[in-house]
Amino acid sequence: MSKTINWGIIGIGKIAEKFASDLATVENAKLVAVASRSIDRAKEFGGRHDSTFAYGSYEEIFNTPDLDAIYIATPHTSHAECTKLCLNKGVAVLCEKPFAMNEQEVKEMIHLAEEKQTFLMEALWTRFLPSTKKVLEIIDSKALGDIKLLQADFGFIPPFFPERRVLNPEYGGGAFLDIGIYPAFLSLLILGYPSTILATSTKGPTGVDETTAFLYQYGNNNIAKLSCTFGAETNTEATIFGTEGRIVMKKRFHDTKEIELIPNEGEPQVFNFPRETFGYNHEIEEVNDCLRKGKTSSDLWPLSQSLKLIQLLDKTREEAGIVYKTDKS
Amino acid sequence: MSKTINWGIIGIGKIAEKFASDLATVENAKLVAVASRSIDRAKEFGGRHDSTFAYGSYEEIFNTPDLDAIYIATPHTSHAECTKLCLNKGVAVLCEKPFAMNEQEVKEMIHLAEEKQTFLMEALWTRFLPSTKKVLEIIDSKALGDIKLLQADFGFIPPFFPERRVLNPEYGGGAFLDIGIYPAFLSLLILGYPSTILATSTKGPTGVDETTAFLYQYGNNNIAKLSCTFGAETNTEATIFGTEGRIVMKKRFHDTKEIELIPNEGEPQVFNFPRETFGYNHEIEEVNDCLRKGKTSSDLWPLSQSLKLIQLLDKTREEAGIVYKTDKS
Repeated sequence: MSKTINWGIIGIGKIAEKFASDLATVENAKLVAVASRSIDRAKEFGGRHDSTFAYGSYEEIFNTPDLDAIYIATPHTSHAECTKLCLNKGVAVLCEKPFAMNEQEVKEMIHLAEEKQTFLMEALWTRFLPSTKKVLEIIDSKALGDIKLLQADFGFIPPFFPERRVLNPEYGGGAFLDIGIYPAFLSLLILGYPSTILATSTKGPTGVDETTAFLYQYGNNNIAKLSCTFGAETNTEATIFGTEGRIVMKKRFHDTKEIELIPNEGEPQVFNFPRETFGYNHEIEEVNDCLRKGKTSSDLWPLSQSLKLIQLLDKTREEAGIVYKTDKS
Repeated sequence: MSKTINWGIIGIGKIAEKFASDLATVENAKLVAVASRSIDRAKEFGGRHDSTFAYGSYEEIFNTPDLDAIYIATPHTSHAECTKLCLNKGVAVLCEKPFAMNEQEVKEMIHLAEEKQTFLMEALWTRFLPSTKKVLEIIDSKALGDIKLLQADFGFIPPFFPERRVLNPEYGGGAFLDIGIYPAFLSLLILGYPSTILATSTKGPTGVDETTAFLYQYGNNNIAKLSCTFGAETNTEATIFGTEGRIVMKKRFHDTKEIELIPNEGEPQVFNFPRETFGYNHEIEEVNDCLRKGKTSSDLWPLSQSLKLIQLLDKTREEAGIVYKTDKS
């Protein structure tokens, strides 16, 4: 039987709820500790998800015996700090995306992980979904021919709570870092790092970016045409167009349950990916697997890719004029 | 009964075929003359479309008695020259889009039309379609709330005949001027002239632009995210996203027969626009109506809008690095 991996969670917002719920479906893995700045909220969350320990500060979580891995689900602005805290204690880290606020922070995290020989991975959960793997498999099979255009959008109207993370510039809020990362990630995964980056943005009432549109060009090969918005409910679909056909990742593309391969000639093919979880179980299994094998990073979403992604996000933000306090001038 | 408008056609390619076919469906309008550089092709085309006269040179068409209007359907590179030829003879002009190769040419055409007090209109036929008018009506009704994002693409793979207009740089070929004009036009019609223009392009084997993607930003209000390609079969849909809902102009959006209004709350509404013509009859009726009223331009697609459109196309081309011989350095 595989070794049980004992998990802790730092930061217990909405995404931590789903993560904990999915963790319960993974074999030989257990939630053993949760930490929040509020002990009451920690106890309530921990009780609901059968955690052995609940703490009212992040530092206390390292008192937990046999803690193997920590999932960091705090606001973006504290990802780097929390990650370094864990790595310094020699505990493996799965840190929510965006990995940190900028390239400098990500580099520090990666260097520390290497120095401490401790596992680190960005929680880019969509990388590990069977739908994403299938898209890559179809592209590798050359069923699309040469890719010419990749198109993706992500948009919804969040409830207007200016003080909460999503719309609050103090916590790295805004559409781009929150949901624009999904189209950016997809383009990086499929087309690599672009040679040209163009971006433009509008700002919402709290000062964070509301709608951001961005174009990536790859040599003379192809173009990605991407956008995100907190101003409208959009299709939230991705389509990859090639000379021989296209793949449509249906709404919502980042964790789609249905993709369609539409060749220019011949019948369309639909692939379904039913699941009962939120989809976080796949990234959890990847971490568990890496830890059991004694690896310090994932081959499917290595730290080199996380570095490229933050470089892409930084450069796109720069073009679009999206600035945070954490940015160096 | 309305005065019959006698039409001539200069340039008898694929679009002239459809135009002549639609002209035959318009009441009190008649094709009386066609002109091509080849007298054999002119006779063949004229015979097929019941034209009274057929000429082997453009200049001869002015020998036609009682000629009211000329439709110019030559390659883009000769639009300006042919238009000026007609205006100098005092004959009304409907000139195919793009109106000319650049702003300078369009300005010369407009100045000459004003000087000669002769009717001139760009053949932006989609402006006059009932579907386009309905989209504007829905937007005016505020059913979408505030527009946040406009998204449109146009893409298909033309047959590879490098010498023909579509792929030939000598004739102003390339995706952008040929089909990119439709998303650009739609954004201009709905959102006006942008404050920021970003664009990038790939080139195909004949040196013309193959895929061009372009972003327009409007103050801090909204963004248009547009593309065209000759490299892939794309959805060729347009969607206008607002705070309260969206309008989808179904494939192919520029002459759609179906638009759907999808409110964020409540039931979607579908509007159908069945027609048996190619859709050019609407622009023909607009010209006929203007001529009968003694007008020298259309109120629905005035010359000021054509000027703005070519300025938009010029600037977008400049950003994307799409250059023609006709461009001044």
